[in-house]
This record gives sequence, structure tokens and C-alpha cells, in this order.
Amino acid sequence: MQFVAAEHQHRRLNPLTGQWVLVCPHRMLRPWSGQQEKAQENDLPDFDPTNPLCPGVERPNGIITPKYRSTYVFDNDFPALVEQVPTPPSSDDPLFQVAPARGTCRVMCFHPKSNLTLPTMSAKEIQVVIDEWIQQFNELSAKYAWVQIFENKGSAMGCSNPHPHCQIWACSFLPTEPQLKQERLRAYYGTHERPMLADYVDRELQKKERIVIENPDWLVVVPYWAAWPFETLLISRNNNKRINDLTLRQRENLAVTIKELTTKYDNLFQCSFPYSMGWHGAPTGPEHAHASSAHWTLHAMYYPPLLRSATVRKFMVGFELLAMVQRDLTPEQAAQRLREINGKCHYLHKD
Amino acid sequence: MQFVAAEHQHRRLNPLTGQWVLVCPHRMLRPWSGQQEKAQENDLPDFDPTNPLCPGVERPNGIITPKYRSTYVFDNDFPALVEQVPTPPSSDDPLFQVAPARGTCRVMCFHPKSNLTLPTMSAKEIQVVIDEWIQQFNELSAKYAWVQIFENKGSAMGCSNPHPHCQIWACSFLPTEPQLKQERLRAYYGTHERPMLADYVDRELQKKERIVIENPDWLVVVPYWAAWPFETLLISRNNNKRINDLTLRQRENLAVTIKELTTKYDNLFQCSFPYSMGWHGAPTGPEHAHASSAHWTLHAMYYPPLLRSATVRKFMVGFELLAMVQRDLTPEQAAQRLREINGKCHYLHKD
Ligand SMILES: O=P(O)(O)O[C@H]1O[C@H](CO)[C@@H](O)[C@H](O)[C@H]1O
Ligand SMILES: O=P(O)(O)O[C@H]1O[C@H](CO)[C@@H](O)[C@H](O)[C@H]1O
Repeated sequence: MQFVAAEHQHRRLNPLTGQWVLVCPHRMLRPWSGQQEKAQENDLPDFDPTNPLCPGVERPNGIITPKYRSTYVFDNDFPALVEQVPTPPSSDDPLFQVAPARGTCRVMCFHPKSNLTLPTMSAKEIQVVIDEWIQQFNELSAKYAWVQIFENKGSAMGCSNPHPHCQIWACSFLPTEPQLKQERLRAYYGTHERPMLADYVDRELQKKERIVIENPDWLVVVPYWAAWPFETLLISRNNNKRINDLTLRQRENLAVTIKELTTKYDNLFQCSFPYSMGWHGAPTGPEHAHASSAHWTLHAMYYPPLLRSATVRKFMVGFELLAMVQRDLTPEQAAQRLREINGKCHYLHKD
Repeated sequence: MQFVAAEHQHRRLNPLTGQWVLVCPHRMLRPWSGQQEKAQENDLPDFDPTNPLCPGVERPNGIITPKYRSTYVFDNDFPALVEQVPTPPSSDDPLFQVAPARGTCRVMCFHPKSNLTLPTMSAKEIQVVIDEWIQQFNELSAKYAWVQIFENKGSAMGCSNPHPHCQIWACSFLPTEPQLKQERLRAYYGTHERPMLADYVDRELQKKERIVIENPDWLVVVPYWAAWPFETLLISRNNNKRINDLTLRQRENLAVTIKELTTKYDNLFQCSFPYSMGWHGAPTGPEHAHASSAHWTLHAMYYPPLLRSATVRKFMVGFELLAMVQRDLTPEQAAQRLREINGKCHYLHKD
């Protein structure tokens, strides 16, 4: 029998992390009688006087959110990371290793209106978000080794406030995932004298099997090693190293790309599509200011949990936590669905 | 200011995986207005004529589940892994690495009654489950490199059938997590000439800060590097390498230990406590039959998602997926709560 990736289970390597993913396409046939998610509601008011992220509303700590008109950034009232904290005593026991952690956590509202999301905002409004990301990155990257910009969208992804917003956690150290990438990208560059993701973009453009969106500045693919059913990777085609080295044209194109990708996501299951997304680029701060970033390529990752419909998600549980990540449909099947679905017209605006 | 682990953020290293965990105890103060889980119901009937895991009920494929009286094992009707599958063509492109995957997936019912769970079964009944685990392990480990026994309990952990059961996925290869452990346990043994987890048990018994349950054969701790809020590690104190080298006394004691631990879990938030759990020990199959397993210690991991109550869970999302795992309360705080809560009397049986 001949091997057919869309039919036969196999493993694929994620070259960014060194971890293998088990792909089991035949498993999509399995019936599902487990937990159903609540589909995200689209009937929020544009202003909710009890939501502290809305302009003019008082936060739990008594501060009043100003009547902002575009984006609005403030320090998280319950930050995971704070700047001033005593250093833990160092330990020479390999089983009880502890290390210091300093940082700062910010919340960034995308828009004054609660009932918008990136796909229902205009490309111009999304560009304001991108410019604010860059502004924040400029400020925080001067001091911190890693600036993680990320959005948890939807209650299925642990988001506790429906107002359109993201978070920025800046750290005095390189966290696990970026540290792993730093090592693997550097090793690839050492061997091939090219950034890994630049080579990857070239190869995907030739193969044309996993492309979702393609324009002169950006490529969106379901990566060959995707873990989540409709995971995508948005990669700079311009050898950008960090989000703050994007030109005006690249930022304009990025806004259009994000609008198109998130519109496709919403249209796929006709719901406000939940995901976690975030940006990775070369490390920053005084520590990395003089190190080479030649091996890096700016990219964003989208991790959406939905598998079959607005209410049936993929659970990364038992086997995934204890052994390895396992996915059902193939990345090529997911890419085809995302490629073919309308990315220009949002399902809520079809009138 | 002096460093106090229960107050000040810091990072801890998981020596089994090499990954760091960010610990942010001050974050427990944060209010939660996000998703609420459905608390697990305890009002199932003991027999449900529509549930294919119940004795005498027909499965979707027409096979009738026999009228079993203790445990019952069958091949998963929708297996992620099958035995007969063509081999993928090998690739020399480092960005498109593919590898074969063969295996078999089984489902194991713990008990004929749908309304029982491990904590509400007797220790004798749990011992029958352990004996069946060993029976299955004996059979599958002869052929497969890795036999992953795991239980997804509760719909919050992706479990799609409330009947008490676990799964066994046997693989022709070492999955990511065991492979990582294999390397790190071997390296530790190379330096210290002792199994890492044997040293860890000794140290935890001295420190007495993270112990949940202790008896001559088993130690349960919230590990120093725990990721999930009430994660525990159940470790053999007898230099066992695999689940099938347990003596009768060790199995008896294991049944009592599992009953006590899961009773504590249920009592913590007065609900049927969801978790994913599974066993790790030395690799198996013809490939590993003659390799040394001296660096291994048999252990089980429990990963429960709940954080504050029966309905509020920890989400491993944005920052966790993109940067590193982050936890709120400290492992010592979690261990104290689990240690102090009743493990002998289940909250449903208090009359
Ligand atoms: O096979 P089940 O129980 O239906 O499926 C559950 O466990 C599997 C193994 O951890 C996961 O891959 C699935 O996402 C989960 O829903
Ligand atoms: O800060 P939030 O949005 O309340 O919290 C959310 O995102 C954080 C960062 O990914 C996670 O640690 C939390 O578990 C999640 O609920």
C-alpha cells in the first residue's frame, strides 16, 4: 500500500522546537459526545458600564479608564510579573533550581467599542493596533530581554473580558519557548547560513500545499508541524527581525493580512473564532543588543482550539500532556479549508 | 527585602524536562470573570442503556459490550494509532521531517457501574484495575517501545464518556515527553550514579514541604516544578522501573494510595475532581529490552486543571503556549492544602 499523508498516521518534526507531532487523519471520523463549548456571543453592547476596559468606567482599584478613542494601554492590575522583587537565594542542588524573574505586564485595548474584534475592525483601525504594539515594544525592549505580545481571544482560551484587547508581558529573561527557538534557529543558521524561516517560506511557496494567505510582505501557512487543528504561522517575507523594524508598507500589509486571516477564522465555523496568538522575534534588552539576530525572522503564531464546529474543540490532554501532541486532520486539509473560505467579507456583514 | 517563595515571583526548573516554570503567588488575588466550568455531576445512574461502555450495551460498530463484572478492555473503535500502515517516504529536508508511527489503542473500563470513580471504588476494586494495567502492560510492552496508560477524567479534561475508564496507547516509537525524560534521567545517572527520582524522593522526605501522602512504598508530592495548580507526582520508593515489576504488597499499597489521593482531590472542591493522569517508566519493546533501565523510577503524574473552585480552572493559554508555563499558588501551598484535607472519607459518604 502506498503512503498517503491524508489517510495514514505519521509523525512530523517541528524544527523550531525539536518536538514531534503525531498526525492521525483517520481520526476525524470519531463521533464526539464530550464537552460542548459555548459559541462566542456576538450580541455585546458597544459600551458596558460595568466593564472596566470600556472608556470612562472605574476599575476595581478605583482608577477610571480614560475616555480613549483608539487604543489604550495600562499596567495590569493583577500582574504575573512585577519589577521590584527580591532575588531568590541560588541553589546548587540540580533538583531544586530556582532563578529570578522580573518584568512588567500591560493590557492593551484595541478599540473603545466592546462589540468589535480584529476581524470586524477596519484595516486602518488594525494598523493603529500594530503601531501601538511597536510603540510598546520600543519602550519595553530597551530594558527587557523578552517582550511577549499576545492575545487570548474568547472564553475557550481563558480570556476573562470580552472587550477587544491583548496583553504584553515583558521579562528580564528568555522564557522556555523563545530560548528553545533561539538555540534551534542559531544552529540552523550555523549549518545553512540562512534564517530557518526564510528557507521555510521559500519551500512553502514552491510546494503550495499549506498556503492560506500570500502577499509580497507576508505569508500565512498552516505549518507542516501544526499542533492545533487550524493553527497558522504568519511569517515576514522581508527578513524582519523584530516587530519594530517593519516599514510603513509592511505594517499596512500586515493590517490587511490580519484582517483577512481572522475573517477566514470567523467564517470557518460562523462564530467569533477563539485563539491565542502572539509575536516572536529576536530577543532584546541590553543583554541581546549586541548579539547577532541574523538567524531570526519575525513571525506570529495563531493557536485556535476549535476542531469541528463552533462548539467542539480539540483537547490537549492525557496522551498529549504525557506523551506527545496528536492532531486529527492534516495541516494540508486545514490549509485548504482556510484558503478556500472567504477572507474578504465577514459572515456578520453579509447583507 | 528578603525573598519569600510564597510571596515573590520566581522561576523553577523541571529537571525531568529542562523546562522552567514561572511561579507568581501574588496572582491568586486576581478576580475571575472568565469561563466557568460545569461542575461534574454525581447523579449518573449506575447503568445507562445508551452508554456503550456499560455491560450489555451495543457499541456504534455493532459489537455488544459483554456483561463484564470487574474490568473490561477492548480496542478503541476510533484509534489514533493502528498497527498496519504504510511507511512514509523519508525526507532529507530538515524542515519537512516525517517518521513512521505504528501502534494500538485500547479502552479499559474500571468497573461495570457508570456512577463510580476511582475515589468511590474500594481499594480492592482499585487493585483489580492495577492488576489489569499490569496485564495490559505485559502484553503490549513485549512489542511496543512505549505503552502509555492514561486516564482523562471529567469533561474539562476532554473525556467524552462519564463511565469510569482509562486508555492505553502503545507506540512503536518513544514519544516526545518520554524521550526527553530518557535523555535527562540518563544524564543525571551518568553524573550522580543514582536515579534522579530516587534522589528526589530522599530530598522531599527530608524537606517535608511538598509531601501529600507518604507510606513505605509510595510518595506523593506536589513537585517543586509543578505546572498545574494541584499537580502531583506519585513515585515508587522501591526502585521499580516499570509498572509490571511491582510486588503484591506494592500493588496493595498503590491501590490505597490512589484511593487516598483521589479522595483528597474530590474533597478539595467537593466535586468529582477532573484530571489527566498517566504512568511513566523505562521504555520497552525489543529495542529497549537489553538497554539499561537503571536511571528510571516508576512514577505517575496527575495534572488537574482546577484552580480556585469546582468551576474555575487554570487556562494554559497565550503566555503559557508562547513563552512558558506560569502558575499562581506555590507548590508548597498546594501541597499543604492537599495534605491537610481528608483523604480517608469521601465527601459523598459523609453520613
Ligand atoms: O479518545 P478520547 O477520550 O475521545 O479523546 C480524548 O483523549 C485523547 C488522548 O489524550 C485526546 O487526543 C482527545 O483530544 C481527547 O478528547
Ligand atoms: O491575565 P488573564 O487574561 O486574566 O489570564 C489569562 O491569560 C494568562 C496568560 O496567558 C493565563 O496565565 C491565565 O491562565 C489566563 O486565564
